[in-house]
Amino acid sequence: MISSHQAQCLLAAAQDKAKLLNVPVNIAVLDGAAHLKAFVRMDGAVLGSIDVAMKKATTAALFQTTSESVWEYCKPGAPAPALEISNGGLAPFAGGLPLKGARGELLGAIGVSGGAVSQDLEIAQAAVAALSD
Amino acid sequence: MISSHQAQCLLAAAQDKAKLLNVPVNIAVLDGAAHLKAFVRMDGAVLGSIDVAMKKATTAALFQTTSESVWEYCKPGAPAPALEISNGGLAPFAGGLPLKGARGELLGAIGVSGGAVSQDLEIAQAAVAALSD
Amino acid sequence: MISSHQAQCLLAAAQDKAKLLNVPVNIAVLDGAAHLKAFVRMDGAVLGSIDVAMKKATTAALFQTTSESVWEYCKPGAPAPALEISNGGLAPFAGGLPLKGARGELLGAIGVSGGAVSQDLEIAQAAVAALSD
Amino acid sequence: MISSHQAQCLLAAAQDKAKLLNVPVNIAVLDGAAHLKAFVRMDGAVLGSIDVAMKKATTAALFQTTSESVWEYCKPGAPAPALEISNGGLAPFAGGLPLKGARGELLGAIGVSGGAVSQDLEIAQAAVAALSD
Repeated sequence: MISSHQAQCLLAAAQDKAKLLNVPVNIAVLDGAAHLKAFVRMDGAVLGSIDVAMKKATTAALFQTTSESVWEYCKPGAPAPALEISNGGLAPFAGGLPLKGARGELLGAIGVSGGAVSQDLEIAQAAVAALSD
Repeated sequence: MISSHQAQCLLAAAQDKAKLLNVPVNIAVLDGAAHLKAFVRMDGAVLGSIDVAMKKATTAALFQTTSESVWEYCKPGAPAPALEISNGGLAPFAGGLPLKGARGELLGAIGVSGGAVSQDLEIAQAAVAALSD
Repeated sequence: MISSHQAQCLLAAAQDKAKLLNVPVNIAVLDGAAHLKAFVRMDGAVLGSIDVAMKKATTAALFQTTSESVWEYCKPGAPAPALEISNGGLAPFAGGLPLKGARGELLGAIGVSGGAVSQDLEIAQAAVAALSD
Repeated sequence: MISSHQAQCLLAAAQDKAKLLNVPVNIAVLDGAAHLKAFVRMDGAVLGSIDVAMKKATTAALFQTTSESVWEYCKPGAPAPALEISNGGLAPFAGGLPLKGARGELLGAIGVSGGAVSQDLEIAQAAVAALSD
């Protein structure tokens, strides 16, 4: 499972990237069972993104994949319509990433929301890269 | 109503099929009133599929039909948009099957989730076939 | 974390004890993060006890103690009134037990409901004893 | 409103105090509108206390007082029975404190849970003291 030290490392790297991009975001870090481990709302981040950051991270943790991957299952014409309303509501778009350990085991997940979806993803990726350093 | 013996028979047959397919799944068995009768999460099944298995079985029990049949009512252009958000959230895609008795009466329902949608359906069908043996 | 094999062992031992006591119960087994692993409703168990069995197990998993221990914190005059309404509702009375591994680590929890509270506890204890055999 | 800098100061002081007391806790910091600003779950803190820390902080923010003060309104014989089930559930016991600015304006609230109630309060007080330094 993810440690407090790892969670703080993720939050720090994500905030550094967000400042570079000049976009305030919400950042949620969950453990591998989708329980909240750490969270930060940067000054100026919109309130509506608190829940979105949580749901992106939850989506990544519960399905052990990127949040946007879940959309491949439930988008129009895909085999699992309405999958997004399961589990209290998923966020099947980019910005949620699973966190894997050295042997591929699930450590947890991170979810970022507040910027453009592409920025949210970039910030989450910067955090994950910092974790594996 | 479904008996404990029947529920265990369903869970055993579903797990046998899932092992053959090499895909760990969650399996929920409900009675005809959509109350939980038995449940198993196989080792390695993703956490996000617990709720999906429950919702597939609930969908099948509440509407006395296959879970994917409900999509015919609420898909784009169909007469009942948003039906899928009723009843605490349905799962209108394959893997949920109603269980019928010898005279067609509703005994309960089974829901399977964790593999590809087609695998989930195959596993549910194997369980239903075992029940009627 | 608890395995499917261990969960089935718990359910079997609990049902054996319940049959000896001649009282049909609901039995829920959770993992250490309070996610459902396995469940059985014995024939004749009252519907209202499904949720109670789940909540007893959740209480034991989330607080890593017996479900009734939580009442010591929130009973009249105790320091944490209304603790029982946290976490979606706890069941702070006997019948929920944490499951510990050989080194004291949390494996999961079991919750039993449907009989007298003392019977529920006795059944849960029989299951835990079987697990450690 | 509370800033990210202030929130981090609160989390750091709370964790320092918790380490001194040798008790791992969950710490939630909300803004004055009861929206989450920052959160940390220390390694080893029980999962059941995540929600309790949130509810203590929510209680303090929504009523602009200490979380335990709310109990004076809803305890047996007091004029507002069941107040604790309003607002999605309050936690009317110690560990939640409002955060006030220099002119007495509400900045936010902190909630701590995971130790004995008296420890949780002590940790929250240490955080508030650090904020006003």
